[in-house]
Formats: sequence, structure tokens, C-alpha cells
Amino acid sequence: MEDVIYVVGHKNPDTDSICSAIALSGLLNSLGLKSKPARQGEPNSETKFVLEKFEVDLPELVTEASGKRVFLVDHSEISQTLDNIDKAEIFGIVDHHKIGDITTPNPVYFIALPYGCTSTIVALLYQYFGIEVPERIAGIMLCAILSDTVIFRSVTTTEKDREMAEKLAKIAGINDLESLGIQLFKEKSGITEKSTREIIVSDFKDFDFSGKKVGIGQVELVSLSLIEDRKDEILRELRKMKDEEGYTAIYFMLTDIMKEGTELLVVSDSNEVVEKAFGKKVQNSSIYLEGVMSRKKQVVPPLEKAYS
Amino acid sequence: MEDVIYVVGHKNPDTDSICSAIALSGLLNSLGLKSKPARQGEPNSETKFVLEKFEVDLPELVTEASGKRVFLVDHSEISQTLDNIDKAEIFGIVDHHKIGDITTPNPVYFIALPYGCTSTIVALLYQYFGIEVPERIAGIMLCAILSDTVIFRSVTTTEKDREMAEKLAKIAGINDLESLGIQLFKEKSGITEKSTREIIVSDFKDFDFSGKKVGIGQVELVSLSLIEDRKDEILRELRKMKDEEGYTAIYFMLTDIMKEGTELLVVSDSNEVVEKAFGKKVQNSSIYLEGVMSRKKQVVPPLEKAYS
Repeated sequence: MEDVIYVVGHKNPDTDSICSAIALSGLLNSLGLKSKPARQGEPNSETKFVLEKFEVDLPELVTEASGKRVFLVDHSEISQTLDNIDKAEIFGIVDHHKIGDITTPNPVYFIALPYGCTSTIVALLYQYFGIEVPERIAGIMLCAILSDTVIFRSVTTTEKDREMAEKLAKIAGINDLESLGIQLFKEKSGITEKSTREIIVSDFKDFDFSGKKVGIGQVELVSLSLIEDRKDEILRELRKMKDEEGYTAIYFMLTDIMKEGTELLVVSDSNEVVEKAFGKKVQNSSIYLEGVMSRKKQVVPPLEKAYS
Repeated sequence: MEDVIYVVGHKNPDTDSICSAIALSGLLNSLGLKSKPARQGEPNSETKFVLEKFEVDLPELVTEASGKRVFLVDHSEISQTLDNIDKAEIFGIVDHHKIGDITTPNPVYFIALPYGCTSTIVALLYQYFGIEVPERIAGIMLCAILSDTVIFRSVTTTEKDREMAEKLAKIAGINDLESLGIQLFKEKSGITEKSTREIIVSDFKDFDFSGKKVGIGQVELVSLSLIEDRKDEILRELRKMKDEEGYTAIYFMLTDIMKEGTELLVVSDSNEVVEKAFGKKVQNSSIYLEGVMSRKKQVVPPLEKAYS
């Protein structure tokens, strides 16, 4: 059995799985244990951004558990853990999900709490042991909390998540959590890298409503603020598409999955049909539709009816 | 689903399973939850003694989980828990054993730490939440720690167990942990209720060594101090047996399972054989045999040889 304790999150790691592993490994080392963080897969674009922003090294890739001492974070399910976990020594588990099917032959440290993020629990453990979180580690833990709780909008968010995020923000010297969070979700969605055309066509469908060619596209976002600064570009591009491709109208749904509503961008010679369909006035080429999430069930039927 | 949270230990409850349930239920109530302690079976003689000594009520008997909210203590195995646990809502688990096979459909509070006793962890939780343990509850938690750690002699004992036991002892106004612990194990062993004759005959065998009738009895104890004040009685009774039942000699093993040694009481006309067998002198009808635990393997063979 290797001496070092590998701290590792779940397969297909997200920001919390990688950042809570780094943070917990640091805590174990501060407590006199010998540990290093690991990851089970490639970091996503959000995680890369977070590690670069706070100048923290990417942990080494580890997928095999045989002969290793491991501390699992952010999961307690066999299907999500390292290969051959039964040939490893599980030193502990810190998680915020439902209790999974991992068992151990001996007593271990197992701390699962129903909070929004594993990094919240790791922050509590730093506090419990009276160890100050290093500045850069505080930064990445804060990002993990903002990401997992969808900037405190997810129903999984607890008071502890807010409390720890505020403490970590103070240490990391970050004042505006909202704008850091928005930045994270921009990175995650890949919107930053996509051209306006790519954003539009990634989920776009043509319809024939009573002989008229109508296009309806959709982009789903955790917050409309992610796309706020690109709305004018999108409208320009939609108008160009309408003219070049002979649409009667194009409707583009900016759906806020957290607020459960859609801002519908409207590009049409006349707003009469869409205003009839949804009973609301178009203002600045836009209608906000409270509670509307589904193109198929909530947008197509009223439009089709209004065109007929 | 019932509103109240039942806090309950494992089947065939020991002192820790009942006392940690009472203590954790009290903590949950202090934190504003609605909870009551329960037990899955009859208390043993030690637990009864503990609850009577500190004037704490025996929790209600609960064996069925259907439709209940439950907080499990001192176990995380399906085989040890309430019937129909899959029809209950598990609110949390606090344990000090290996991680068992109980899973949950939702995130819960699961705190398992590799300490000697669940009550140690519950004491840490009181401390974490800044809630003072009530005097009587401190008394029963202290007893649970003394019992589970065999008065700090078990290899499962940790620094945390000692630390919490000392804090609880201070609250409960108990100075002599050793004598309280000895009292507990006396209650547990049932020695207090048994007559001297019952103690002797409960595990007693006759042997024929080269035509001589030799009796060898054994009692296993977590500490020889449990029986210290009854040694003279036992010797008197052994002498009576020897005369009435025609033994050449009677040897009675007082085996200390924690120290891994045996005090051999000797009742014989001559000590020559037993002194030859073990290479030690008999003093006050007694020889201490370091490392001797087994009658069959470590006492019968040297005696048989010495008699031949």
C-alpha cells in the first residue's frame, strides 16, 4: 500500500470535484498527513479557467485505485469512483450527495452533509481544525461553490454555502461574487468562444406555419446575464438570416433555466402574430415569457395557432 | 411521514447504542428539531444500571421504520437497523464502525469517524454546535465511552475518546473513571448477581491426569479488578469442592482478556506439580501467567505433562 493519500473526486470531474480534492489534500498535509490531489478525467473549460485564474496546478490524472490509499470527495458511489476501489485503502470520504454504495472493511472518516457543494464542507473542516485557508485555495473553493450552487440560485443552496463562500471570498480578496459566478458560467457554456452564428444555429429549427417559413432557435442558460452583452449582435445576425434565407419571422428563445422563464427575441416584419400568440407587446424586439421553458410545448403551439 | 425524528441505535442494543441515541436526540431538540430517542431491543444489565444511576428514562421500543423519519446511531448496516428502513426517511447517521450498506435517495447528514465510541462523536457535535451537555446526559455518554473502549484499554481507543470522556466526567461530576468503568463491567458480566458457586461452575471441566482427578475452571474478564473482592470466597468454595468431590487439585483461571494474562488460583495438597508445570512459585494460592489465555492450549498441556 502506498503511503501517500490520493484525494480524488468523481469521474467526469466538474469544478467542485477537482477543487475540493486540491483543498482537502492541502488540509490533510497541514494536519501532518502525506497527501496529494488527483483527478479522474480532463478538466472542463470552467475548471481550467478557475485553476488558471488562481494559479493553482492541475492535479495529476489517476484512474486506478489498486494499492493506493485514497480519500474520496464529491461522491460515494462505486460507479463514479476509481477502478478497482476494492483493492485500495479508503482513508475517508467527504461528500454532499446521497449516500452511495461504497462500503469499507474498517472504520474511516466519512463526512457527508446535505449542503450545496463539497467545497463548503471542506471549508468547514478547515475552520474546525483552526487552519486558515490559503488565498489561492480559497479562490478555487469559492468558484466551486458558485458553480455547484449556480451562484446561490439552485434549490440545493444552504445557508452554510453562503456563509463559507463569503468567508472564502474575503480571504481570496473577491468582492463581486455575482460577476465571478457569471464569468464561470460563461466559461462553462462555452459562449465566450462561440461566434454569434454558432450560438444561434446550435439549436435551431424551421417550421411551416400555414405556408409561412418560421425559424425558432433556443439557447438555455443559468442566467440571462451570460448573454446580455451579445443580444444586439444576435438580433443583427437574426435579421441577416431572415433576409438571406427568406423567413417570414425568426424567434429566438433565451431561456433562463434557473428563473424558469424565456426572453423571446423577435425578428419579423409585423409583431401582430406573436403578440396575439402570447398576449404581450413586443418591446425592443423582445417579449419576456414567464414560466416558458419548452419550445415544443409552450412556444410552437401558440405560434402555430396564431399563424393559422 | 411522521414529523418527529426517531434517533435509534442497532439491534441488540448495547450501552452506546442506547445512550448515544438519547444524547443525539437531546442535541437535535436543542437545535430546534423535533426528536425522540428509541431502542430496538431490551437494554442489557449494564445499560439498565447506567440509566438508573443517572436517572435517565429508558427510550421507547421501536423496531419498525415505515413512515418514520429516523436518525441512525452506532450502525450503518441494513442487517442491524429497523425493519422496512426503505420505507423510512433517513435524516442522518452518526457511527464509528466501518461504512455499511445503507444508502439513501437524498443527501443526508452522515458522520462516521474512526473513534472508539459513537458517544464520543455526539460529544464532539455538542461541542461543535456550542451546546452544553446536560449533567445526566454527560453521565450516560461517559459510561458509553468507558464501556465501548473497555475503560480505554481497547485498541479502538483514540485520543478523542479520552478527551471527550474527561470533559463529560467534569460535567457529570465524576472523578474516578476507573472505578466507574469497573462497576460497569461488573454489571455487564453479571458477576454482582452470581453466587460464588455459579461463577465457578459456569465454565468448569474435569480431567484425568495419570489417574488423578483434576478440575480446571475459567472466568474471562475485561479486568481482574472485577473479581478482586471475591477471590477469597472463590478460594474457600474451591477448597470445599476439592474435599467434597475428591479432587487431587483444582485450578481456577481468572483470565484478563485485555491484559492477555491469567491469574491461576491453586487449591492442592502440594504445589510441586503446578510450580513445575509453569516454572513459577505459588504465592497466596495464586500464580500469575503472563500471556496465558487458553485452558486447552496453554494450561492443560503443561499440567498434564507435569502430572505424568
